[in-house]
Amino acid sequence: MCRWIAYRGAPIALEHYVTAPAHSLVEQSMRALEATASTNGDGFGLGWYGEHDEPGLYHEVRPAWSDENLRHLCRHIRSHLFFAHVRASTGTPTTRPNCHPFAHGRWMFMHNGLIGDWSLIRRKVEGLIPDALYQSRVGTTDSEAVFLAILGAGGEKDPIGATAETLATLTDMVRASGTADPLRFTAALSDGRNLYAFRFCTNETANTLYYREAAGSAVIVSEPLDSERDCWTVVPPGHMVIARPGERVALQPFMAGVHHAAAE
Amino acid sequence: MCRWIAYRGAPIALEHYVTAPAHSLVEQSMRALEATASTNGDGFGLGWYGEHDEPGLYHEVRPAWSDENLRHLCRHIRSHLFFAHVRASTGTPTTRPNCHPFAHGRWMFMHNGLIGDWSLIRRKVEGLIPDALYQSRVGTTDSEAVFLAILGAGGEKDPIGATAETLATLTDMVRASGTADPLRFTAALSDGRNLYAFRFCTNETANTLYYREAAGSAVIVSEPLDSERDCWTVVPPGHMVIARPGERVALQPFMAGVHHAAAE
Amino acid sequence: MCRWIAYRGAPIALEHYVTAPAHSLVEQSMRALEATASTNGDGFGLGWYGEHDEPGLYHEVRPAWSDENLRHLCRHIRSHLFFAHVRASTGTPTTRPNCHPFAHGRWMFMHNGLIGDWSLIRRKVEGLIPDALYQSRVGTTDSEAVFLAILGAGGEKDPIGATAETLATLTDMVRASGTADPLRFTAALSDGRNLYAFRFCTNETANTLYYREAAGSAVIVSEPLDSERDCWTVVPPGHMVIARPGERVALQPFMAGVHHAAAE
Amino acid sequence: MCRWIAYRGAPIALEHYVTAPAHSLVEQSMRALEATASTNGDGFGLGWYGEHDEPGLYHEVRPAWSDENLRHLCRHIRSHLFFAHVRASTGTPTTRPNCHPFAHGRWMFMHNGLIGDWSLIRRKVEGLIPDALYQSRVGTTDSEAVFLAILGAGGEKDPIGATAETLATLTDMVRASGTADPLRFTAALSDGRNLYAFRFCTNETANTLYYREAAGSAVIVSEPLDSERDCWTVVPPGHMVIARPGERVALQPFMAGVHHAAAE
Repeated sequence: MCRWIAYRGAPIALEHYVTAPAHSLVEQSMRALEATASTNGDGFGLGWYGEHDEPGLYHEVRPAWSDENLRHLCRHIRSHLFFAHVRASTGTPTTRPNCHPFAHGRWMFMHNGLIGDWSLIRRKVEGLIPDALYQSRVGTTDSEAVFLAILGAGGEKDPIGATAETLATLTDMVRASGTADPLRFTAALSDGRNLYAFRFCTNETANTLYYREAAGSAVIVSEPLDSERDCWTVVPPGHMVIARPGERVALQPFMAGVHHAAAE
Repeated sequence: MCRWIAYRGAPIALEHYVTAPAHSLVEQSMRALEATASTNGDGFGLGWYGEHDEPGLYHEVRPAWSDENLRHLCRHIRSHLFFAHVRASTGTPTTRPNCHPFAHGRWMFMHNGLIGDWSLIRRKVEGLIPDALYQSRVGTTDSEAVFLAILGAGGEKDPIGATAETLATLTDMVRASGTADPLRFTAALSDGRNLYAFRFCTNETANTLYYREAAGSAVIVSEPLDSERDCWTVVPPGHMVIARPGERVALQPFMAGVHHAAAE
Repeated sequence: MCRWIAYRGAPIALEHYVTAPAHSLVEQSMRALEATASTNGDGFGLGWYGEHDEPGLYHEVRPAWSDENLRHLCRHIRSHLFFAHVRASTGTPTTRPNCHPFAHGRWMFMHNGLIGDWSLIRRKVEGLIPDALYQSRVGTTDSEAVFLAILGAGGEKDPIGATAETLATLTDMVRASGTADPLRFTAALSDGRNLYAFRFCTNETANTLYYREAAGSAVIVSEPLDSERDCWTVVPPGHMVIARPGERVALQPFMAGVHHAAAE
Repeated sequence: MCRWIAYRGAPIALEHYVTAPAHSLVEQSMRALEATASTNGDGFGLGWYGEHDEPGLYHEVRPAWSDENLRHLCRHIRSHLFFAHVRASTGTPTTRPNCHPFAHGRWMFMHNGLIGDWSLIRRKVEGLIPDALYQSRVGTTDSEAVFLAILGAGGEKDPIGATAETLATLTDMVRASGTADPLRFTAALSDGRNLYAFRFCTNETANTLYYREAAGSAVIVSEPLDSERDCWTVVPPGHMVIARPGERVALQPFMAGVHHAAAE
């Protein structure tokens, strides 16, 4: 049960959302309010777009709250589109390659959730990754495997369709495996220009997701960053958010029928 | 506000107290119950006596709960006298040399507390360390400085007297500095044979200390390791515990008058 | 091009071979003499058998030469059978799960070499690992995959046969992949009782291997630990060494014909 | 014997000097040519000035060559004035606070050298640091202590004079201590606007220093970054380099008489 934040808008120093607010992501690393794991101390990561097509990445296995580097980087790096993530492991080791966000070419991804009983379906999920992309698998998490599977399903051309297709396949795999664990997927995906965020779960326990839009910028978060909860809009389960340059943030259904089908 | 455990008795694998109990030290690293900081994720350490005079040490900056090495070491290392400590920093950086326990020759020390406003009196406390011992100062914590000051005050010959003398000096320094912060000292000291544990504070907020004696072994802890709280004896503020081979554990006053003097 | 040492004999402190000799393994981490990579600073590991069936493990991503923990552990841990390994990565990330030795149940393995062009055949090699063992894959190295493949081929019942069978399969995979890189395999395997070490390569560039036998103990190394090179016996390419309790060390051919077949 | 680079000029991505050249600083971390320690694997650091007065810092205890974060940061961070440093410890532990560069307010400093027998004069050197600055001492290196001593001697107003005064004092301390070790000081200092680099030693073994000037930018290095050695000017012992905005780089004597005095 990790916590994350994604930003898209005018270029801004990362510190405005990662380290500075009252309930900043770094603060959530020590005391999350809406997560089942209250401590998110199993590593963290930053990813940001700048002048290059490929995002910059910073991964660290130490807790975010004691990392002096993180404070310096968040103060000095400005970006129009960035991700930050604090990790509470669901079983895989605490290594840098297992820290979010993950990147491949210009695409970047981070995730809060779990993919059923990972030990039961890991091999099948990895089987969804095409050979050419499998070389990019540097860690062992379910999240990285799902990201590469989405790209393998055509995510670069149709990110929403490929994500939906991959989640439908994963839902079948999780059910067929016999585990009682759900598939929980609260995730962000971007190509450096458009930002997509998804909230999906195969049962009633979808991980939380909120967003806030102001002055042309969008902030999408696991938990509100401050006490002004009225400013934040809940993304309902089975929905997604799209933030494109020059457009209002769009909230729309995403795989809305899948959960109901599962519940019948 | 750290958490620690000290053991003296028949040789035993460290896991029996460090990783295995319901409320083990590793569990306390994520969720301490009686500490002001509920997460103790700023590094940890082990120290144990074996066939050599000098103790073995293991220090790590990652949180104890995610360290696979710790589980292996606690399962495979046996000792008749060992310390384990999870750290919640009071300001100094999270580095290995700042992790407890500290060792010098055959002496080992660990601490839960703080020494007033460290930035105000650091230089004076370091001034208590004799030149010969100052070379052993590898970190920057108040705790390590106090340990070396105790040894400098004759701790190897008279550990209790030297500790009391050092704390009296420190109490004066803290008061003279003008800080409102107290001197809190809940600490363990050993030469590999005898184990001393102290609970002292210059105000009413002494950090907790408990002990349990059974079948010739003594376990001294910041917090009980299990729900059978009846088995654990509280060490009152202004008291200390002594565990010597072949003797019953002794609970006795330690600087009991100092706090009252302060309160007058 | 890593460096390693394996010991089997009377229980001894690890320091006698890992940290103390003139050209100890830790010294080799900074300046190896017979390796293509002169610095082995991409992590290291210890594995040792004690009172439990399963070995203890210590993995660290920092270079061996600056790890104070390593000195303490090597001084205080005694074992009748242990492995130590300093790593020079051939491409996979420097993480703890990618450090040798690897363990599964009572079996332990470490490796110096490479498996052709890993990016080309990784998926096929992972395909050799049975489902039940795939859950034990915590890292991303070729070495760990080969270890689990050997166990999957029946290594627990017939370690030499399963290793030979796996290497024959790997040799075919490497050749079929079209890479010019050889399969180099200089490795150690043990169940806590018997120690097996192999030197094999699909071309003329087998990584070095030596052993020394004295007073009932066997030491097997990538490079001699001291300048008395006369004391060390070269293990020729296409050979292996077996050290069993109560028996003399046996040097015997291992897949001796495979390389010749390849060279024809 | 560390290696470092300092840049001042038009804003540029750090990668141009830190990671990209044939003999880049990262390459030097594994194989320095002109240093007594050929491997500089005891941590590294970056410091750069951007839109804030205070520099950004990145410190890491792992070797530079295997740090993926470093590659990302050097590719994405641009600066008009930056420092990079790979460390080979002369005795103090490998911790982040012991990694160069050091910063205090707008001032930044890094060092290649040693201050005689540090264990003999450490306390006296620390005694040069005013109380107000002593709170900024987060590590235990000689280099950080010298930096804070220079600031304490008025370095913010007269950086060259304060550095000379501090080195004169240190030279006396080293001589009085009776050690045979020299004082070696090849260092860089900046306030974000002007860049000063010094080459000084109390005997004939001053650590190397070079610079290159082109198109209004200055690069100052421990070792040339490429094979075009003609492009690089040697800074002789007892000299310093000053790079100010809008001016040509100035090479001038610095404490030139002190060494001769010592030799008499």
